[in-house]
Amino acid sequence: MAVARTVLLTGSNRGIGLELVKQLLGSPRPPAWIFATCRDPDGPRAQELRDLASKHPNLVLVKLDVENPSAITDAAKVLEGKLNGMGLNLLINNAGIYTPTASLDTVDAEDMVRTYKTNAVGPMLMAQAFLPLLKKAAQDSKEKGLSCSKAAIINISTILGSIKKTPDSFFHPVISYRCSKAALNMLTMCQALTYKEAGILCVALHPGWVKTDMGTQEVSSGQAGQQGTHGWHPML
Amino acid sequence: MAVARTVLLTGSNRGIGLELVKQLLGSPRPPAWIFATCRDPDGPRAQELRDLASKHPNLVLVKLDVENPSAITDAAKVLEGKLNGMGLNLLINNAGIYTPTASLDTVDAEDMVRTYKTNAVGPMLMAQAFLPLLKKAAQDSKEKGLSCSKAAIINISTILGSIKKTPDSFFHPVISYRCSKAALNMLTMCQALTYKEAGILCVALHPGWVKTDMGTQEVSSGQAGQQGTHGWHPML
Ligand SMILES: NC(=O)c1ccc[n+]([C@@H]2O[C@H](COP(=O)([O-])OP(=O)(O)OC[C@H]3O[C@@H](n4cnc5c(N)ncnc54)[C@H](OP(=O)(O)O)[C@@H]3O)[C@@H](O)[C@H]2O)c1
Ligand SMILES: NC(=O)c1ccc[n+]([C@@H]2O[C@H](COP(=O)([O-])OP(=O)(O)OC[C@H]3O[C@@H](n4cnc5c(N)ncnc54)[C@H](OP(=O)(O)O)[C@@H]3O)[C@@H](O)[C@H]2O)c1
Repeated sequence: MAVARTVLLTGSNRGIGLELVKQLLGSPRPPAWIFATCRDPDGPRAQELRDLASKHPNLVLVKLDVENPSAITDAAKVLEGKLNGMGLNLLINNAGIYTPTASLDTVDAEDMVRTYKTNAVGPMLMAQAFLPLLKKAAQDSKEKGLSCSKAAIINISTILGSIKKTPDSFFHPVISYRCSKAALNMLTMCQALTYKEAGILCVALHPGWVKTDMGTQEVSSGQAGQQGTHGWHPML
Repeated sequence: MAVARTVLLTGSNRGIGLELVKQLLGSPRPPAWIFATCRDPDGPRAQELRDLASKHPNLVLVKLDVENPSAITDAAKVLEGKLNGMGLNLLINNAGIYTPTASLDTVDAEDMVRTYKTNAVGPMLMAQAFLPLLKKAAQDSKEKGLSCSKAAIINISTILGSIKKTPDSFFHPVISYRCSKAALNMLTMCQALTYKEAGILCVALHPGWVKTDMGTQEVSSGQAGQQGTHGWHPML
């Protein structure tokens, strides 16, 4: 089985991002380079990532805040240098935020915009900035068709971004999150249609419910009963 | 047939909004109050609306920029005064913006956020601010079920906000517009689920292609051929 030789992840210092880094490091054919990006690679929240990097020379920490357009283009330059002529096979837009209490009663413009910037605009900017490296990987690949081992963008979305499925999970309104992820799903469709000619696969992925800081936040509305007795969000 | 007695529209100084005002004024049983809101009711772009208001005492011009949360709550206070105990039957979130050139190559964070603020956050804030008046109309109505003549929110959306239908219209990428309207569609679903208990109907509506400033903008990408020979956007 072919695997991605070079991978970049956003929000990789904890939660699903960190777990993905671990899985990639532990896979039978680990990538030549894993670019684990996060907002503060030198701070306390990236300790586990730094510990991993000290053991795995193929793991490189890169500073990247997906809300900051110039930080994104800076990171793309860092990668270009490190890759030294190689392309980027796989971009995983995993960083995401979430306001658990955002019902229609409580959500405000600031929360809507902040969540949209991180969850939808960030992935758009990431794809723009890393497009030359993704194209390079696609061109250099001998594989036919589209695949993650050739060139791909995976946008980590959520079932809560599905309009059709909203009635099933609306005990948890999370308006700002849902709207941002519906937009991310639209963005992914646009990316798939735009980038397929360059040989880049684009998909939105619902990871399922995962017990992370986001996934285990306790319910703050009075509707925990509807979510079963565990008190966690069954899906995000 | 029952009809809405009190109606508010956003972006009513031109395009579809202005036409809706005219249709309402000319209907067999015109509303008791039409609140035609726009950004600059005293400026040149509202001349036609002012001319109409001088002939129709049931037409009231109200200043309202949907990007400005405090302007929205101010407008709600103006309405409350005018309505003097009556509720608001129908809120039409029509104001919208659109960047015709926004492909994945050219779209930027600023455009994404601006378009989202007007097309998705604005309708969210409008519904929040006018909810007490919509609830009042629902309570005062003797009608069963949900209807525009009882209490309703109509969000003017577009077929371009449908993820599923995107491949059919992608000759016209308009990324920032599509993402904002996909989010508006999600918002509408959340509003429908939240506000139905209060007796408020919430729907997203695609008006079809309408020859307005937005709908007749010439194609600026090199792909006009794919849109037939008229050179206009066939849908927005
Ligand atoms: N957990 C679930 O059950 C679940 C279900 C469906 C979908 N998801 C999706 O999966 C993804 C990861 O979720 P998670 O559960 O791992 O969340 P999490 O535990 O809260 O971690 C979020 C990660 O995103 C990072 N991040 C937030 N804003 C950022 C920004 N502006 N720039 C760069 N990084 C940023 C955080 O970094 P800091 O440490 O700097 O804050 C952190 O690394 C999200 O997109 C989420 O929507 C999760
Ligand atoms: N035309 C079509 O074919 C078509 C198709 C599908 C959907 N739609 C939707 O229908 C709606 C109306 O479109 P249209 O064709 O009538 O557009 P238009 O001719 O460009 O008019 C847009 C209206 O929205 C107002 N507006 C923009 N930003 C605003 C803000 N921040 N606050 C308040 N008002 C604001 C404009 O006011 P100013 O004069 O102050 O700029 C104007 O009155 C939009 O939501 C659009 O997405 C149109």
